[in-house]
Order: sequence, then structure tokens, then C-alpha cells
Amino acid sequence: MVVKAHASTLDEVARLAGVSKATASRAINGRSKVSAKAQAAVLDAVRELGYTPNGAARSLVMQRTGSVAVILPESDERVFSDPFFARMLHAVARALRERDLQLVLLLAQPGDESRMLLYLRGRYVDGAIVASHHRDDRLAEHLSDLGLPCVFIGTPWLGADRVSVVDSDNAGAAAQAVRVLVESGRRRIAAIAGPRDMRAGHDRLAGWRQELEAAGLDSSRVAYGDFTEHSGTTACAELLDADGDIDGIFAASDLMALGAMRELEARGLRVPDDVAIVGYDDLGVAERTQPPLTTLRNPIGQMVTEAVRLLTETIDQGGRGAPRHVVFVPELVRRDTV
Amino acid sequence: MVVKAHASTLDEVARLAGVSKATASRAINGRSKVSAKAQAAVLDAVRELGYTPNGAARSLVMQRTGSVAVILPESDERVFSDPFFARMLHAVARALRERDLQLVLLLAQPGDESRMLLYLRGRYVDGAIVASHHRDDRLAEHLSDLGLPCVFIGTPWLGADRVSVVDSDNAGAAAQAVRVLVESGRRRIAAIAGPRDMRAGHDRLAGWRQELEAAGLDSSRVAYGDFTEHSGTTACAELLDADGDIDGIFAASDLMALGAMRELEARGLRVPDDVAIVGYDDLGVAERTQPPLTTLRNPIGQMVTEAVRLLTETIDQGGRGAPRHVVFVPELVRRDTV
Repeated sequence: MVVKAHASTLDEVARLAGVSKATASRAINGRSKVSAKAQAAVLDAVRELGYTPNGAARSLVMQRTGSVAVILPESDERVFSDPFFARMLHAVARALRERDLQLVLLLAQPGDESRMLLYLRGRYVDGAIVASHHRDDRLAEHLSDLGLPCVFIGTPWLGADRVSVVDSDNAGAAAQAVRVLVESGRRRIAAIAGPRDMRAGHDRLAGWRQELEAAGLDSSRVAYGDFTEHSGTTACAELLDADGDIDGIFAASDLMALGAMRELEARGLRVPDDVAIVGYDDLGVAERTQPPLTTLRNPIGQMVTEAVRLLTETIDQGGRGAPRHVVFVPELVRRDTV
Repeated sequence: MVVKAHASTLDEVARLAGVSKATASRAINGRSKVSAKAQAAVLDAVRELGYTPNGAARSLVMQRTGSVAVILPESDERVFSDPFFARMLHAVARALRERDLQLVLLLAQPGDESRMLLYLRGRYVDGAIVASHHRDDRLAEHLSDLGLPCVFIGTPWLGADRVSVVDSDNAGAAAQAVRVLVESGRRRIAAIAGPRDMRAGHDRLAGWRQELEAAGLDSSRVAYGDFTEHSGTTACAELLDADGDIDGIFAASDLMALGAMRELEARGLRVPDDVAIVGYDDLGVAERTQPPLTTLRNPIGQMVTEAVRLLTETIDQGGRGAPRHVVFVPELVRRDTV
């Protein structure tokens, strides 16, 4: 950096960057209306000259990075094996591209989030979208403490009142699943629930239970999985070992439903004749099971679009503004397992 | 920030952070020997007090982010559908975790890299590992111009002499594939080549051609794909339409080999009886084809470990030091398609 005896002017920045003063000003004050090349040249000139623009403009030059983090507190294995993540990241990537923002993907093993928080503390991103969070990561509280603009996809267990949230009505969707099973004549309906430390897991189980109880049916048949196929197989075996008369299953993910169907088949039970089953997600897996799976679909594209909109608004307002919670309604997709 | 009339001392930083002076010093001068919590507290105190450490320490506090980018100039669809990426990222994540560095994943649609370069220009990461690069992205030249420490997995088309590279002997591996086909008596051996704008695609084709010519065989049977399964089906159809007498195929990826096997099956051709086939990758797909696929395996784990080692060395040397090129030898994995 050149040490200068006098304060640099916008004229000097423009001259060094080889752009007009108007372009230099636009590059410093906003991002969308200059080419990436001009933007880069102006930023270089700003650094070279030690130029200090005023107030808000200064914060833009010094503090806006043009990037947004997607935070997934999950192992890379899970991120690459569950189609939820691919679908969600695809939607985020597209929404950010439209706003000329770079996507920065941060993974962290559950329980090992401190390094990621240290990174976020450095303000190398303008904001964050957080998905697949767990109770113990306390990310809503941590990010809120940092003052980093963020939007959660899925309601966090703790600190939900301090952050913006885009969620779907998981409990209502589970109730729909129970209704379709009851309408088909099923009376001994089990649940393969999601992780107990994730809100989506908790809410889907609660909706299942509430609807069963409203119908005067037993709600004690529960086994837990972690949304993966393997855990669905194990949970289904556990349920059938405890009660061979089960005639319906609600699985809180399609991968768990697929795992359960493998176990049913291994035991010679037919779907839907002996046991009807409803999954959750509809991200490709449900179309390929044998028979194709009746399931519930979250509008992930719309949820992500809304999350990016809320986040960029929050960033534009300098992180101020009250948190907002938006809830979407999932859709029942009827196929052949009920 | 508190505006202070006198220069802050390390004592004051330690006191405000609630740690010993030795811990504060370690937190400022290096990263590995203090807890993330202490590190964060010290960095906060440094910012709060406007503490300016000297020389190298200053550059560590001001310029080291504790993060490394993995740059994949590919669409998210490809990253999530080709097992190469999952395997590579898994290895990178583990190697970085061991060094207490945060992985920052940057995707960019091919041809749309300018936003990513702008982000990298901001120095929000300490260095970068680049994989799956293409000729036209000119990333080796761009990153070298930025002075950002980087290591390429796979040799870049342009500017390879300016950056460190970890590669595998793609041409030698393709020659092995041809030898195993020739030894099994095949004489009309086609290639399903990878993308023409990627070095791995180019080198595998060159090795196939050279070995065929050394054996006095025809090397004109070539069709191109983009490493995906679908492109393998299309390329195989193209080859068979041009010459129904093909008795051997070398496919430059297992996914393309799988696609080719689907086309062979659709035409009633048996593998290996009518047509023998060798793939490339051995990342799970090859074990599951019917029959299991003979293929070549790059030691991805070792390549990534070496790349992370070279990168952290380069970062520790402040980006100085001559670029180094390391080449690993792939292994032939014999299964049942030859």
C-alpha cells in the first residue's frame, strides 16, 4: 500500500482504476451496476490509495464481501447422500446468482462448530442461510450474538425469536399423512420419526401423534431414525418386532420410508396390502421406490427464494429490522403406497 | 470500537480476553495451540482495543482467516451427481480439520467465474485448492496473478508452471487399460473420451491412442462425453452406429462406462463376451455395475493429503517458494468386464 500524505479523492481512485468517476462511485456505493472487472479495478485502487469513502459507502467498501454463506452443520457424507441438500443448494445458488452474490458453503461436523463460528466472526461473508441445524449447536443464538444477518430454513430449537425463519408446517403435513392412512382403513399406524434434536423431526412426530389421538387411535408405536435409509430399516425392524400387526407407517423422510420398505419386503409383507406407508420429501427417491411412494412435499424452491429475499433485505438494512417468520404449507403427493 | 489515545499492549489484550499473556501471544502468532474459544476472545479483544501487533504477527491477525477455499468451477448439479466430488471433499474436509482450518466451498458455473474471482480478491480465505478446472476458466493464471496461495488437483491447461499441482498419471493409466484389453485378445478398441477442455480428458485419450499405436492397432474409434452417465450412453451409440465390430471400449470415467454398458445391453451385446470395457475412477459405481467394472483408481485420498500439505506450506511461507508438481500413479482394479 502506498502511504499518502493527503487524503485520496474519488477522482484519483477513478483515474487509477481506469474508469469514470461515476463508475467508481457506483462501484463503491453498490455492486449491481458495474462490471466485475470495473468493480475489481476500483477496489484495487481504493486499497492502493488507502481511499476512505464516507459513512455508508465506507461500510460497503470495507465490510460488504459480495458473498453469502450457506451453513450446514452436517458431515459431508450426509450432505452428499441426502437429496435435500442438493436440491436446497441448487435453489440457493440460483437465487444468489440472480443477485450477483457468491455462495460460500460451510460444513461443520455436528458438535464441532467452533471453527466455523470463528470464521463467521471474521465477517468474511455478508450474511448466512442456515439449514439442517440441531438443538445443541445453538446456532441461532450464536449468529444473533455475532450480529451477522441470517435466515434459518427450519425453526431453530433455541433463539428462534432472535432470527428470521422460513419453515414449512411439518406438524400439519404429518397430520395429512395420518388422515390419508386412516381414510384407507388403517388403524394401527406407527411412526418412524426423525432425529429428536431437530425441529422438523420433533414437529412431524407431534403432528402424527395429535392426529392419531384426535381419531381415537393409539399413538404409542414410535421408533426413531436420523433421516437416512439405513436408520429407516432399523426403525422398521424395531417396530415390527414389538408389534407384528402394524398396518400403516408414517416415515418422516423418504429415505427412511425406503429403508422401511426394504425391511417389510424382507419379512414378506406387501406394500400397501399389508402395510401402507407415507414418506416425506418427494425429492426423487419417492418416484423410484417399488411401488412409488405416497409422500409430502415441502416447496423447497419457494422456501429458499423467500429465505434469500429476507436475507438480502436484512443485509441491505444493515442487519436491523425485526426478525420475520414465514411458514409454507406442504403438499400431499399421492402415489401407490396407501 | 473504543478509540484509544495510547497504543494497546499485549497485556491489555490478554486481560480483556480473560486469558494469560502467553495464550494471547499464541492466539495472535499462530492458530493451532489455543482453543477456539480463547482464539475468539483474543481476536475480539484485539479488535476492541485496536491492538496492532508487529510485523509477521500483524499479518497473521490481519490477513490470516483460518480458512481454505475449495474451488470447483462446475454446476452444483454435477458436483452432487459425480462421486468424485463427494470423495474429494470428504478427504479435503478431514485434512483441513486436522489443521484446524475451515473449509469454504466455492462453486461457479463454468464461464461465470468473475464473481468468484472478485470474492477471492477480497482475501477472505488464506488459500485455495482447485479441482475440475477447464481450459477456458484460466484459473491458474488468475489465482497466480492475485498472489493467492493455491494448489491445483489436476494439471491446468494454461499457467501450470505458475502454480503447484497434484496430478495422477492419466496417460499412463489409459495405456494400462489398453494393455489389459489387448491382452484379452481385443483388437478393435474404441475410446469414450472425457471433455476436450479438461486435462484429464485430454491425457486419458492421448494415453489410449499412444498405446494402441504402439501395438499397431487402429486409434480412430473415438467419441466424446462429459464424464456423466448419459453422455456415455450417447457416445457408445455413436461408436456402434459407426462401427458395429467394436470389441473393446476404454471409457474415461466409470459413469460413462456405466452409460455405455446400458447401451450395449439395449443392443443385445454381452459384456465382456462381445465387448470388453474398462472404466476410470473406482468410486463405488464400478462395484455395482452388472458385471462389476474393471477400472483404474486414482489415489484421491493421498492426492488430497498432498495438496493440503503443499498448500499449508505455501501459506506458511507467505506465498513464496517455487511451485511444485507431484504426480501419483493410478492402480488397475481388475473385475469382470474384461
